[in-house]
Amino acid sequence: MDLKINQQTKPMDIKSRVELIDITSYVEKEVENSRVREGVCIITTPHTCAGIIINENEPGILLDIVNFLDKLVHSGEVYEHNKIDNNADAHLKTLLLGSSEVIPVVEGKLELGAWQSIFFAEMDGPRDERRVNVIVIKK
Amino acid sequence: MDLKINQQTKPMDIKSRVELIDITSYVEKEVENSRVREGVCIITTPHTCAGIIINENEPGILLDIVNFLDKLVHSGEVYEHNKIDNNADAHLKTLLLGSSEVIPVVEGKLELGAWQSIFFAEMDGPRDERRVNVIVIKK
Amino acid sequence: MDLKINQQTKPMDIKSRVELIDITSYVEKEVENSRVREGVCIITTPHTCAGIIINENEPGILLDIVNFLDKLVHSGEVYEHNKIDNNADAHLKTLLLGSSEVIPVVEGKLELGAWQSIFFAEMDGPRDERRVNVIVIKK
Repeated sequence: MDLKINQQTKPMDIKSRVELIDITSYVEKEVENSRVREGVCIITTPHTCAGIIINENEPGILLDIVNFLDKLVHSGEVYEHNKIDNNADAHLKTLLLGSSEVIPVVEGKLELGAWQSIFFAEMDGPRDERRVNVIVIKK
Repeated sequence: MDLKINQQTKPMDIKSRVELIDITSYVEKEVENSRVREGVCIITTPHTCAGIIINENEPGILLDIVNFLDKLVHSGEVYEHNKIDNNADAHLKTLLLGSSEVIPVVEGKLELGAWQSIFFAEMDGPRDERRVNVIVIKK
Repeated sequence: MDLKINQQTKPMDIKSRVELIDITSYVEKEVENSRVREGVCIITTPHTCAGIIINENEPGILLDIVNFLDKLVHSGEVYEHNKIDNNADAHLKTLLLGSSEVIPVVEGKLELGAWQSIFFAEMDGPRDERRVNVIVIKK
């Protein structure tokens, strides 16, 4: 086996419209389960209103990110998509964040920097569950 | 074979300066041709004024994305690069969009969400052709 | 060997707060050293205040990028994270840029477009050294 894909619909207790959920320990466990010692870990999500990001798990910056994205897309704006589904702002924020991250795996562990955590970035909550895919490619 | 790269200069009928071209069926066909059952598909483009994005193929949101990007970079702005080549706005939009996307392949198909489509995001059209690379990594 | 990871703490002569360092020739050399003829090259960085981007190495556009990012995050803004560490603007810029890039390798060379260069994008300098990871996956 050179590559392991774990697709999981994860129960998520997302209470707000925009919320950053730290999934680092979940991804770390998947890497551990894969028994890959050296390789690459890819995290993706199949949603158009949620992304995968890397940033610091510090309450202040997480709040800053939420407010910054809100300001960038001006959620009060008139968007065409809102005639269909009232979440154009969530689509635009997701566009900026991206749907995947790639992280090296070294000696069986994610090669994350001291301040890096992985987040599921919900832009259109609240939600009870969301899908996350973790792929580990082996050396 | 563990990995298949298909580089293709694709004829593209891009009529506007900014246009989002749905390339999902093209990428799906490449995955099918690769006969990979489980793996990862990576889509890249070698241009500095065009990106690869994932979003919903709904006319309203596609228009919203185009307008949102225009507003973010204020295309009337004075940019240094415009002394050389009048497309700084296209470079800045591409910077925000990114040049690649990564999608799992499961049971021979792209693991896209119900609302996800893949787009070639032209920021400096019109154009007759552009390059797209599709890479499929096999389990 | 199907995959080669080179993690390197690179001495970097970053003199400004925000600086784009062209690392294309370094990455090209790593691809050459890996002796991979066809595959994929992934470049990542483990910092929360620096990203990896692809754009044109033209002084005007590099200045435009720096100014554009500054304007987007309004560095004078009151951010919560600044109570802890005075670099919320660097975190927000990195969020928009992303921490990785993926490029095909064809005939032993990076499949970069004519105008594409790879940059280490420092958002929180000056710095003497920073880490860059280059991963090459072989066909």
